Amino acid sequence: MDIGFIGLGHMGGPMAKNLVKAGHSVKVFDLVDSAVTALVEAGATLSTSAQDAAIGADVLISMLPASQHVESLYLGEQGLFNTVDSSTLIIDCSTIAPETARSVASVAAGKGLTMIDAPVSGGTAGAANGTLTFIVGGSEEAVNRATPVLENMGKNIFRAGDSGAGQVAKICNNMLLAVLMSGTAEAIQLGVANGLDPRVLSDIMQKSSGRNWALELYNPYPGVMESVPSSNDYQGGFGVDLMAKDLGLAMESALQSRSSTPMGALARSLYAMHSSKGAGKLDFSSIQKLFSEL
Amino acid sequence: MDIGFIGLGHMGGPMAKNLVKAGHSVKVFDLVDSAVTALVEAGATLSTSAQDAAIGADVLISMLPASQHVESLYLGEQGLFNTVDSSTLIIDCSTIAPETARSVASVAAGKGLTMIDAPVSGGTAGAANGTLTFIVGGSEEAVNRATPVLENMGKNIFRAGDSGAGQVAKICNNMLLAVLMSGTAEAIQLGVANGLDPRVLSDIMQKSSGRNWALELYNPYPGVMESVPSSNDYQGGFGVDLMAKDLGLAMESALQSRSSTPMGALARSLYAMHSSKGAGKLDFSSIQKLFSEL
Amino acid sequence: MDIGFIGLGHMGGPMAKNLVKAGHSVKVFDLVDSAVTALVEAGATLSTSAQDAAIGADVLISMLPASQHVESLYLGEQGLFNTVDSSTLIIDCSTIAPETARSVASVAAGKGLTMIDAPVSGGTAGAANGTLTFIVGGSEEAVNRATPVLENMGKNIFRAGDSGAGQVAKICNNMLLAVLMSGTAEAIQLGVANGLDPRVLSDIMQKSSGRNWALELYNPYPGVMESVPSSNDYQGGFGVDLMAKDLGLAMESALQSRSSTPMGALARSLYAMHSSKGAGKLDFSSIQKLFSEL
Amino acid sequence: MDIGFIGLGHMGGPMAKNLVKAGHSVKVFDLVDSAVTALVEAGATLSTSAQDAAIGADVLISMLPASQHVESLYLGEQGLFNTVDSSTLIIDCSTIAPETARSVASVAAGKGLTMIDAPVSGGTAGAANGTLTFIVGGSEEAVNRATPVLENMGKNIFRAGDSGAGQVAKICNNMLLAVLMSGTAEAIQLGVANGLDPRVLSDIMQKSSGRNWALELYNPYPGVMESVPSSNDYQGGFGVDLMAKDLGLAMESALQSRSSTPMGALARSLYAMHSSKGAGKLDFSSIQKLFSEL
Repeated sequence: MDIGFIGLGHMGGPMAKNLVKAGHSVKVFDLVDSAVTALVEAGATLSTSAQDAAIGADVLISMLPASQHVESLYLGEQGLFNTVDSSTLIIDCSTIAPETARSVASVAAGKGLTMIDAPVSGGTAGAANGTLTFIVGGSEEAVNRATPVLENMGKNIFRAGDSGAGQVAKICNNMLLAVLMSGTAEAIQLGVANGLDPRVLSDIMQKSSGRNWALELYNPYPGVMESVPSSNDYQGGFGVDLMAKDLGLAMESALQSRSSTPMGALARSLYAMHSSKGAGKLDFSSIQKLFSEL
Repeated sequence: MDIGFIGLGHMGGPMAKNLVKAGHSVKVFDLVDSAVTALVEAGATLSTSAQDAAIGADVLISMLPASQHVESLYLGEQGLFNTVDSSTLIIDCSTIAPETARSVASVAAGKGLTMIDAPVSGGTAGAANGTLTFIVGGSEEAVNRATPVLENMGKNIFRAGDSGAGQVAKICNNMLLAVLMSGTAEAIQLGVANGLDPRVLSDIMQKSSGRNWALELYNPYPGVMESVPSSNDYQGGFGVDLMAKDLGLAMESALQSRSSTPMGALARSLYAMHSSKGAGKLDFSSIQKLFSEL
Repeated sequence: MDIGFIGLGHMGGPMAKNLVKAGHSVKVFDLVDSAVTALVEAGATLSTSAQDAAIGADVLISMLPASQHVESLYLGEQGLFNTVDSSTLIIDCSTIAPETARSVASVAAGKGLTMIDAPVSGGTAGAANGTLTFIVGGSEEAVNRATPVLENMGKNIFRAGDSGAGQVAKICNNMLLAVLMSGTAEAIQLGVANGLDPRVLSDIMQKSSGRNWALELYNPYPGVMESVPSSNDYQGGFGVDLMAKDLGLAMESALQSRSSTPMGALARSLYAMHSSKGAGKLDFSSIQKLFSEL
Repeated sequence: MDIGFIGLGHMGGPMAKNLVKAGHSVKVFDLVDSAVTALVEAGATLSTSAQDAAIGADVLISMLPASQHVESLYLGEQGLFNTVDSSTLIIDCSTIAPETARSVASVAAGKGLTMIDAPVSGGTAGAANGTLTFIVGGSEEAVNRATPVLENMGKNIFRAGDSGAGQVAKICNNMLLAVLMSGTAEAIQLGVANGLDPRVLSDIMQKSSGRNWALELYNPYPGVMESVPSSNDYQGGFGVDLMAKDLGLAMESALQSRSSTPMGALARSLYAMHSSKGAGKLDFSSIQKLFSEL
């Protein structure tokens, strides 16, 4: 299949590589030359512009940092919506505001184009290993068309609803993740401060009603689990600043829908505080450091 | 085995019954006559006082509402510590302040007695079905002695550490549970307010990094799961006031250990607010009602 | 002076009246005919369009609900920036996002126009009595020009800084106000729940380090002060939904500047929760009802 | 008047000195010899024991760190309640749990003694200058008797209600103070992060509805006010750990009365976090450092 891929950062780069490996013909573009070069070495075709990558593609994929980049890529006179063929399926994998995802997809539809939002979770390791989760918003038909391609990059493909729903579901999930990570860190510290062994306590809670993803796979307390960021000085993984960005998107959705999210809002403030103290690049499980002397 | 059992409420009653079923000779006492009668009909032996139940027992079990009841039962001139034989193993299953559990066990040790704290989780259903989880604090030897008896009432027996550690671990777990439940309720409502189906969103988060016990077994949003309190007008289950009590114990432990628990403290205030609006007897998953129009 | 006034709602209407009273020649416009009629009866001149009100004005004032209304009024081909004379001083009194205020003022400057942001506090009573506080952003020169006109509508004129600074300062003030009001309500309720008379406690705190605007002028507990909303079933005053809107603007500013505002974020969630339970039209001091049985 | 004074720490020392200055005959006791010596040099009489200080006093004053010290001083066989004359007025100025204050006063009443609780605010400066505020719980008659003596040490004497009410009112006030200090710090930082001058913003809020004690007398942002701790590296003043202690007392009262105090609980967690990062001895306005790079 002919695939155009725009945005070759920490996530987009390995995702595009997996498409090459799967045998697709992938034309790539990024503003950073070295990112393009790495992909070309892996077998992708160099594009000299976003337009060049998009023209003639069966599937066009974008993986960009934020809402304004997506708007800038697709909308306006220079936007790709004036370039791509009506037969091209557009998949935006960026994590952006649901409102933007909906409005961009709506402009696409107005021009006879098909676009879906497909934000991912699973981090850079998931991108490299092809084990990402895609949370997708768009028509059933469009999501079905996208699925074989997404499966070359990920393991789980969930359709959350129509356009924008992928973004909403991802935002809700990540807000919940921040809450349970903070809550887990607090609970472990409360136990440690009262004389418990963090390993024993984590094990008990994991087998009881406190069970959650953090206890299961990503314990925030150093030394409880091997091979997680907390046992490696909180290096690697999913950064504090990225979590803060997703919590910001969650708060914007809460503001627009007038939703009350006290736990999520508190988590956002804790992550913003943690970042402002210099922890922005650490893994997000380092929120433990707010509560413990580590 | 000769077992004395004191405190036959919603939890203690079915727990004692399971001991009778397991073939033990169980002497029971409660201040409420009807509770005693029900047990006697099930095959237990009537005691006319706590002392009567305690004398000659191989194992003495208590299941009482709060710290002061435990102190009052065991300490002082009339207390059971002046009654029970040094060979009796004392198991307090009440959920009380760790500090109290430690000090009472310490008095016991001073008199040559062996006492462990073994608070439970699993609710009235777990008590009835013999599937409770016991989180135990005491010496390894004492916990090993207790295990066969506890296994007649529960499925999982965890030793958290020395005296009081059972209480600490239970408190940490339940604080985390309250945070997870509130966070899950908020996340689902944020999705619903942005057009998502609560079933679809719950399913996606359960398979992603938002995964937790509430999504898995106890979804707080009505209609997502059958046979949970949220689909039955939040009747049954683990009451808001009981969760508020456990959160109070968590806060006391946090105060004494000078721990910072922002998420847990917020959960406590939300549960106290929810209770003050008349929801004290509803299941604790009804915290969803603070965020949703239900 | 010839003044154009656009937006004659609960705030704008009485503000425009005070300009008429002060002897100015005021041309008014609103999409709601009855609002215009009331002003014409008070001595203002009818305009048939926003353009009509703006042409030839020495000062043009707008008082609109939200950012998008301000953008829509001034920007674009039909926008007033293409209509007003370069000698006209433009004063936007709407409470909107600082970012919008800055970008709109920047467009104005690009066209050689002078525009300041001058959001108000003091509520409908302040608007009627001409005792509003204006918190102004713009050059010193522009603010000096505006001051005599603003003094016809208000008592205090503060310059917070350059364009957008008026919005920032108002947002910060109102976020703090929400925190003070919630904190005061909690503190009074804690005292009442522990047997204190809310009047005695309020008096003590007002004379101690808990002193704040709410205790001084706007006690949230019914019966402590006469002539405040809390003693009148929380009718009148500054509505819960308006406070929620301002807290939303504060949260947006916090997100954009990556600021940690845990107290403000919690206040926002409490106000959103309070509104979702049907209290949106009550005075914002009714947050007391979240904590007390009233 | 013959006054016994027990507890000569940072607060008690200067308070006792002011009684000496006022012409009273003051017998003093403290476990720390140097504290006693300083008072004796100032004109007080040495007591070799608490009993010695108490015997024959018209008024007996205690100023101790926490509930357990007060219980230990007055209760039990060695307690002063078995020593003091029935004509002695007992004034406990310690800040302790209201419950303890009530129960100790009740024991006193049972022995025919009169005791009031009179916690103070105003810090070490207020103690030295005789400008403390006393918040008093006890019968009107007892408070009237105490007033002339208290006026030798303070400026404002408030009767909050019967026994324990002084403690409740002080706790409520200090919880509110922590909330408004945190909220003020957040609001200033939000303004600074959006380009405002902290002096200008503080001035505007102080003249608007954000007005509160912190903005008025104790601005937490360095450089806004002279002669406050924030402009002196947060040295001196009222320490973070003391505020954390008072917030702990507030939380205990909230737990016992099942009150919902989300803002107060959040403030407690922020102060506990701040203390755990090494700020325990700084002035409590240093909470600004959690939000700002200072």
